[in-house]
Amino acid sequence: MTLNASLGYALLNTLKADRFPGRRGVLAQKIKLSTIADALGVSTATVSLALRDSPLVADNTRQRIKEYARNIGYIYNRRAASLRTSRSGIIGVVVHDIMNPFYAEILRSIEGELDRSRQTFLLSNHYDQLEKQRTFIDTLLQLGADGIIMSPAIGTPAEDVRMAEENGLPTVLIARDVDGANVPVFRGDDAYGISLATNHLISLGHSRIAMIGGTDHTSTGRDRYRGYVAAMQNAGLEVKPEWRFPGPRTKQAGFEIAGAFLAAKDKPTAAVCWSDLVAIGLMNGIARAGLVPGRDISVTGYDDLEEAAIATPALTTVWNGQREVGRRAARVLLDRLNGAEVAPTHELIKPELHVRQSSGKPVER
Amino acid sequence: MTLNASLGYALLNTLKADRFPGRRGVLAQKIKLSTIADALGVSTATVSLALRDSPLVADNTRQRIKEYARNIGYIYNRRAASLRTSRSGIIGVVVHDIMNPFYAEILRSIEGELDRSRQTFLLSNHYDQLEKQRTFIDTLLQLGADGIIMSPAIGTPAEDVRMAEENGLPTVLIARDVDGANVPVFRGDDAYGISLATNHLISLGHSRIAMIGGTDHTSTGRDRYRGYVAAMQNAGLEVKPEWRFPGPRTKQAGFEIAGAFLAAKDKPTAAVCWSDLVAIGLMNGIARAGLVPGRDISVTGYDDLEEAAIATPALTTVWNGQREVGRRAARVLLDRLNGAEVAPTHELIKPELHVRQSSGKPVER
Repeated sequence: MTLNASLGYALLNTLKADRFPGRRGVLAQKIKLSTIADALGVSTATVSLALRDSPLVADNTRQRIKEYARNIGYIYNRRAASLRTSRSGIIGVVVHDIMNPFYAEILRSIEGELDRSRQTFLLSNHYDQLEKQRTFIDTLLQLGADGIIMSPAIGTPAEDVRMAEENGLPTVLIARDVDGANVPVFRGDDAYGISLATNHLISLGHSRIAMIGGTDHTSTGRDRYRGYVAAMQNAGLEVKPEWRFPGPRTKQAGFEIAGAFLAAKDKPTAAVCWSDLVAIGLMNGIARAGLVPGRDISVTGYDDLEEAAIATPALTTVWNGQREVGRRAARVLLDRLNGAEVAPTHELIKPELHVRQSSGKPVER
Repeated sequence: MTLNASLGYALLNTLKADRFPGRRGVLAQKIKLSTIADALGVSTATVSLALRDSPLVADNTRQRIKEYARNIGYIYNRRAASLRTSRSGIIGVVVHDIMNPFYAEILRSIEGELDRSRQTFLLSNHYDQLEKQRTFIDTLLQLGADGIIMSPAIGTPAEDVRMAEENGLPTVLIARDVDGANVPVFRGDDAYGISLATNHLISLGHSRIAMIGGTDHTSTGRDRYRGYVAAMQNAGLEVKPEWRFPGPRTKQAGFEIAGAFLAAKDKPTAAVCWSDLVAIGLMNGIARAGLVPGRDISVTGYDDLEEAAIATPALTTVWNGQREVGRRAARVLLDRLNGAEVAPTHELIKPELHVRQSSGKPVER
């Protein structure tokens, strides 16, 4: 241990004793690493590594050390320790909204990767508010976090990403891109994915196909709309402005737009939806109007969420690789933290069409 | 600023300069609070408060200070600062699984409360693994977090809660109780809530009612099953072991159990489900089997998730007050942090029945 590290502990103990009378019992005892090391017959270095969850220490040894430390009331103080080490063990993750199962599925796979590396993950929603996203980045900088994985808020300027990077917060983007941000990006190939769904409907005989949901303010929304338009035009089909219903991004919004969709000019026979949530909401709205989705109206989703397969009818949709996106983003960030040179790649994960019951031959109403 | 605080900064700067060559540019400049204060004509105390997001500083002043600080490359280091202040600004939240919309709705309301108090929230899933929950509590202690809100993992011993409390981590429980933990608990009145759903089905004329989902290993599962049994017995109805299908807690599991439920002895005409997720999955499974849920079989849910109202058919369910649970738990924790004496109350939020389309008169198959 260096002089500086001892100073860090001393300072902490002084302050704790001064200002946290409730914690004095534990912390003022000044339990030393060597107390634990001697008791268990391991080195102080092993104790230190085990207490900060280093993967260098075998699992059972680590558990034995942590259990012993907990029993004698030793609390390893990561704040003091992080002043001496180059890693805080914290990675920030910020997305639009964790209540959206699309992000929840990405988060689950990020969590799986970070768990294996014993990183703690600090989560925030930005609800597409730039200020909220900036506050979170500030907090991570203040905590000395190791890095951030973000699905950037609508309108995120490249400067915000650069600011994080320049202040020592390696950044990886998921699901959405930021023009000019020179960092790794992992997302699905949206234009290609939506063309799979659109071409599937065209091959069933549909020619009047609406596009429902999404927004031009995100790369995802723009790319999916472009992909739909391109697929229609490639098949020589007309794209009518009245068949586009931008906006919906939730089940509720998909449900609410069903009336307008069913009343649209020239009665489209099918709907390509921006997401599974919108598609499932729309199907519920169609059913509420007395029609049978999948028979009277064909509907496709996007994402292949877990519930797509068990919806009524089972949803034809585009698998969007969200687990892959989360896994690869976490891996590349961990690689960067371990000192690997990582090019600012833009990785597009290739989507796949999953055909189920919600799409069939066109039926005139 | 005290001597200790200066030491903290000095130590940090030394280490940063030594070990983070990449960060030297920013941190080695030793920008002082007074630089910012002088430039903006405010006191150094105001700058310090603003940089740690104190609500004592007016919003526009705070934003002006943070923007200026960001522009000149000043990063407020919360780790160093938290050695001098009694609050880290971090609150931990641990639940079974954020992918479950029940918890997501609770988290959203916790987040709303914490945001207003400028607390950062550190989130973890425990997936009902005690070891994972313990690791998270350890991490919070290491970070010097201010408190924790937890929906305890199955089998959490009271000692784990006591350990957190005794080490200066005030704890509030949500959704589930821990016997012997002497801390505030906020949850719905499960026995009463399920009796509302069961009595509703009985009043429609059902006498063969199954109970689907949940587990005896949580207070929630036990209380809901007891409430169902009590309601049946109060009405003089038989409770058959074959009509209980414990286990399912997800949409997928509800979907998969539909076959067994439909084949159950004496053909129950209705199902009281442990949650909306299970009920929606079950309805999809019933529909897949060619029957119409809400007409051929009555189904009730529990929680009144956002999607209950837009399901097909719209789900009759029990509003479980999850937003209330989150809001009150966050408030009481903030009160504790602000020094208020809070009794270890056990607050049961009164559920309400919301009747929709999924429940009707019994139909013999």
